[in-house]
Amino acid sequence: MIIALDAMGGDFAPASTVEGAVLAAKAAQHKIILVGDNDLILKELSKQNNKNSLPLSINIEIVHAPEIISMTEQHPVKAVRSKKNSSLAVCAQLVSEGKADAFVSMGNSGAVMASAFFYLRRIRGIIRPAITTMFPTIKGNCIVADMGANVDCKPEHLFQFGIMASVFCSKVIGIKRPKIALLSIGEEPNKGNELTLATFNLFKKSIGIDLDFIGNIEGKDIPTGKADVVICDGFIGNVILKFGEGLAGTILYLIKQKLGYSPVKWILFPFVRLVKKTLETKFDYSKIGGAPLLGVNGVCIIGHGRSNSHAVKNAILTGAKTAQYDVIHDIEIAVNKFNYK
Amino acid sequence: MIIALDAMGGDFAPASTVEGAVLAAKAAQHKIILVGDNDLILKELSKQNNKNSLPLSINIEIVHAPEIISMTEQHPVKAVRSKKNSSLAVCAQLVSEGKADAFVSMGNSGAVMASAFFYLRRIRGIIRPAITTMFPTIKGNCIVADMGANVDCKPEHLFQFGIMASVFCSKVIGIKRPKIALLSIGEEPNKGNELTLATFNLFKKSIGIDLDFIGNIEGKDIPTGKADVVICDGFIGNVILKFGEGLAGTILYLIKQKLGYSPVKWILFPFVRLVKKTLETKFDYSKIGGAPLLGVNGVCIIGHGRSNSHAVKNAILTGAKTAQYDVIHDIEIAVNKFNYK
Repeated sequence: MIIALDAMGGDFAPASTVEGAVLAAKAAQHKIILVGDNDLILKELSKQNNKNSLPLSINIEIVHAPEIISMTEQHPVKAVRSKKNSSLAVCAQLVSEGKADAFVSMGNSGAVMASAFFYLRRIRGIIRPAITTMFPTIKGNCIVADMGANVDCKPEHLFQFGIMASVFCSKVIGIKRPKIALLSIGEEPNKGNELTLATFNLFKKSIGIDLDFIGNIEGKDIPTGKADVVICDGFIGNVILKFGEGLAGTILYLIKQKLGYSPVKWILFPFVRLVKKTLETKFDYSKIGGAPLLGVNGVCIIGHGRSNSHAVKNAILTGAKTAQYDVIHDIEIAVNKFNYK
Repeated sequence: MIIALDAMGGDFAPASTVEGAVLAAKAAQHKIILVGDNDLILKELSKQNNKNSLPLSINIEIVHAPEIISMTEQHPVKAVRSKKNSSLAVCAQLVSEGKADAFVSMGNSGAVMASAFFYLRRIRGIIRPAITTMFPTIKGNCIVADMGANVDCKPEHLFQFGIMASVFCSKVIGIKRPKIALLSIGEEPNKGNELTLATFNLFKKSIGIDLDFIGNIEGKDIPTGKADVVICDGFIGNVILKFGEGLAGTILYLIKQKLGYSPVKWILFPFVRLVKKTLETKFDYSKIGGAPLLGVNGVCIIGHGRSNSHAVKNAILTGAKTAQYDVIHDIEIAVNKFNYK
């Protein structure tokens, strides 16, 4: 597979992105196209070579893209349309021209989505693409959609998010029949707001047509792994993601604060490190790497802005797998099976 | 003050409720009316007397209410209207007849709200009442509304939640000018869905008229104490509350699980207890007791279903304070100052 990587996207780019690309190229037989400022990328590659001699066989190419779309860009759609030589735009162009099988970015997710949408358009039959995230659970991970692409949704949008996430989950994560649940305020079918009640009905009608819809799921059950796919509108998805990050951070802070007062803290520090490591391992985005933008007509993986090289490497490998297993094509078949009324 | 307590409401009632009433009656000069099954209540009071002799001066009365509305009641409105002799209905009747200054319940919150709404009606000018919760923050607590009374809202509903919560916060929590924030997907004013964008404008127009609106707040900042009052629709409020509970529980579970494998766990157990206690103290509902149902024309405090006697006591004291400080009257004045267009 050929993966275009936005070498300039993310808080630690291009160092983390270039290192991640090298790790990915060493780990698997893919070609990585590093897209961004040629000089800065070369500088990083040279550091990598000094650290550990890069094998002659390493399959990395550079495509120069001098324009920048910042992490804090307020008008991503406008930026993507006007900066056709930004790394994000060039990555998406490479995929749309068939010169890459997937693109990966740790950049501003609104801009990544705008770029993907502008150059790749939607899969036939898809009304709205969705940004997803892999949420860690006691059993592993679940995929949650939408995480912010669509802040006001209709039932058919949510229903399609479920179909797409289920295909991805089955092909790339390897769960044969992913359990799909709808995020709501109670498990009973009559619990929810107008949107989720109508969406529930759409899902109900689909049972038996290759979708394992298990009903509503409450917020407290997301970390339990009860569902492999959790569906919600982009506003609520984004709020709970950030809330979860804030809460986990607060809990760690409180533990450290309490320890700070302890007279035997020097004995306990190894344990604190253990707790911190446990939480970080479990809630470690870098193991996951990134999650797909579902619904555009090309493979696009979005990683966390604070990704380290390990996360970048895994995001690249996920992108390659998604392309390899023809997920786009399967999504197109799946969404066009249904009647959305 | 005279507080009517639903002695049958909650997972550990009537033991926890009766013990909580005794604790409250000892702590302050209030009269508590225990409403529920006379025999069961007397049995618990007698246990309390055997444990620690109840002072002769203790100001507790029993009002018999034989019907039950269960914690899992699926049709609370119907149940409240048909079971006029349930403890919940009788509590609300006592307040509406002026025989109690407030009522407190740890029961099914849908039923508590239905009861309060049916017997107390709304404060003049209020469109929709809101269920609130006190959410622990690094700085103390913040009050969040709505937590589930209204799953589909309009901007004016949210705006009024803000006014009411601000009055409560200022009078009962004691924060002079509570900072009110609107839960959204970004701090910038242009971030949000249709509902929050329109609500933001309503709040913006009100700045200077006694409301300290500080703009949008992201989910990750709720635990930081950046805002004293956080406003959202009931669907999202309910989802994040349950999500938070689930996440905190998962984190504790992971820590214990990791420890279980440790060869030196017998050394670390005291520390685990310390961590658990820290989290429980910080995220301890029993210190808070309960949170008000805002917008009905009488004081109503709703506690967590799993409340222990300590929580019940604090919920009673909060109810008394809310009545004492004339919060209902102040809410009426505040909401009628504004134009909601």
